[in-house]
Amino acid sequence: MKVGARHYRSIWPVESAGGARAVGIVDQTRLPFEFVTVELDSWIEVARAIRSMRVRGAPLIGVAGAYGFALAMREQPDDATLVRVHTELLATRPTAVNLRWALDRMRRLLERTPRAVRAETAWTEAGRVAEEDIACNRALGGHGARLIAALQAARGRTVHVLTHCNAGWIATVDFGTALSAIYQAFDAGIDLHVWVDETRPRNQGLLTAWELEAHGVPHTLVVDNAGGHLMRRGQVDLVLVGADRVTRAGDVCNKIGTYLKAVAARDNDVPFYAAVPSTTIDWTITDADAIAIEERSGDEVRRVEGRGADGRAASVAIARETTAVLNPGFDVTPSRLVTGIITERGIAAPSALVTLFSEMPRAPEPAAV
Amino acid sequence: MKVGARHYRSIWPVESAGGARAVGIVDQTRLPFEFVTVELDSWIEVARAIRSMRVRGAPLIGVAGAYGFALAMREQPDDATLVRVHTELLATRPTAVNLRWALDRMRRLLERTPRAVRAETAWTEAGRVAEEDIACNRALGGHGARLIAALQAARGRTVHVLTHCNAGWIATVDFGTALSAIYQAFDAGIDLHVWVDETRPRNQGLLTAWELEAHGVPHTLVVDNAGGHLMRRGQVDLVLVGADRVTRAGDVCNKIGTYLKAVAARDNDVPFYAAVPSTTIDWTITDADAIAIEERSGDEVRRVEGRGADGRAASVAIARETTAVLNPGFDVTPSRLVTGIITERGIAAPSALVTLFSEMPRAPEPAAV
Repeated sequence: MKVGARHYRSIWPVESAGGARAVGIVDQTRLPFEFVTVELDSWIEVARAIRSMRVRGAPLIGVAGAYGFALAMREQPDDATLVRVHTELLATRPTAVNLRWALDRMRRLLERTPRAVRAETAWTEAGRVAEEDIACNRALGGHGARLIAALQAARGRTVHVLTHCNAGWIATVDFGTALSAIYQAFDAGIDLHVWVDETRPRNQGLLTAWELEAHGVPHTLVVDNAGGHLMRRGQVDLVLVGADRVTRAGDVCNKIGTYLKAVAARDNDVPFYAAVPSTTIDWTITDADAIAIEERSGDEVRRVEGRGADGRAASVAIARETTAVLNPGFDVTPSRLVTGIITERGIAAPSALVTLFSEMPRAPEPAAV
Repeated sequence: MKVGARHYRSIWPVESAGGARAVGIVDQTRLPFEFVTVELDSWIEVARAIRSMRVRGAPLIGVAGAYGFALAMREQPDDATLVRVHTELLATRPTAVNLRWALDRMRRLLERTPRAVRAETAWTEAGRVAEEDIACNRALGGHGARLIAALQAARGRTVHVLTHCNAGWIATVDFGTALSAIYQAFDAGIDLHVWVDETRPRNQGLLTAWELEAHGVPHTLVVDNAGGHLMRRGQVDLVLVGADRVTRAGDVCNKIGTYLKAVAARDNDVPFYAAVPSTTIDWTITDADAIAIEERSGDEVRRVEGRGADGRAASVAIARETTAVLNPGFDVTPSRLVTGIITERGIAAPSALVTLFSEMPRAPEPAAV
């Protein structure tokens, strides 16, 4: 999407005249205050960028992982490296399924590729993963935009959409997932307004507010505590989020706090949708509560990052260092609270998700006791 | 309760040898990093302290309002002052019913008191309001502690209590409301652990963590987004909060975000209780959604207060100044989501609250159309 007058993607290949390769990214830890791009020239740097959340968002870290694989193949295209890079990149963020999907795809392809051409093959394939992400997001956003348009037509007034975390273009290669629907609806002239959850502890809502402002979409920032109140007052027409993993049953694993919004949406008859490319759907999982939930550092809660009075990056402690903290990164919204899953193939009720993707393998039967 | 070896109340009368009077408070904006006491020697300073949340918590601001009235009567005991002080102190925090209750009580008493003795009468009455608060909190905490003990006996393991905001001793004169139950259960040897919601935007959860640490109660700080996940994983046995206002029907108006925890509690069969002195119950309200919800400054969301690297008070901006913000201070949890209200007279289901206080005036009948 555009930043100022120029169109950006959140990740792009860099090839210098001398033949060196790198991957360009937007440093998301500098947003919303500064728009800074960075070049990562090794898979180790890609891993570091994912871990530190300079690169974040389930679809984007899948693509970043693929490019990381490609950079590794330039350094050392042997089988041991294939295994090591797959394992270590996967460990950077254990909950997002796109990362595993992209790394599995790269490894499977490269295992059957002669070493001499692994670097080239990997580089091309990473580009393909990125292009597919964009095509997916454009398609799913179109379906979501029609949903928003229908709500607007039914209400006959501004449609208020509440979103949590950042499911925008910078969480993908372009367009975003939940925000792709919002951008496309807005661009089609639909009268809408977005409630942006702050999304503690990492405050990814500020990235969403930054994106929406850059695109000119009306929006209001609220603390994570406010959404239920807004729903009770009739000020939310739709809850629309992305996801880090969706099970074949339509359970939605997303940023911590999503479930609270889903359960409040149900209590107030507000529809709750998750917008995801099909690469986010984990066809192998039957029990959403078995998903490993990443526990992140307590310092993300004890400290808050922002800008000091001098405009430079700064942080403040809000709790004492000795205060015990638990910091789960994600939660699971059970399918019974999900109105629909928006995918590149259309929108399905959770129970009908499998019929949209009937070519996908069936889940393994539960093992006999 | 104790801070170090010494027992403190959150507010106390100060009389100097020369006859000057003031009211002592704990400056709650300095917690959890510093324990600083301050003396307020005029009703204007009391109003300022309430507005800036150096004094906060529904029961405490009622008592602070009463002392403010008493200080005003020393300055000027006429009828115009009675009206002015009542109006201006009431405007400092419009949602909490205790403040109105205490100010009404002071004004009614002083209106029928000769001017010459208004200052003395008001000072004595404010002290009485404070003592009554303590007695109430001790009693309601005893009922709440028995509830926690019963849960512990039923579960046969540590009881996990989730609380939101700060309903502790520093939100009252002493003991607290929700935390009074926790302190008394803990002191009785009940095996318990408290999940402390951060409570954005003002992070009053840090006050709760500070109180619990000072008293030695096991606790863990979490972001407001985490409680639903904890409930889904079976890690919460009880949600226990205070309230700023409870209607005669048992609807609970409390810090923004409380409703989200209540609706998640219901979804997970976790009991949800509010602990309040009866002064927090508004017998006149039949429609909880008609309660005026205070909207506070957007800067409370855009900025976060804490301590910088040098240990001094500092704040960081997390959003740009131009970002639109809505910052409602409270929400309403409808009685259908409330398991019980814990009061000084015992615990009642919301529908039975009126029978515990049968001497209270009936609500006005809805006007005929």
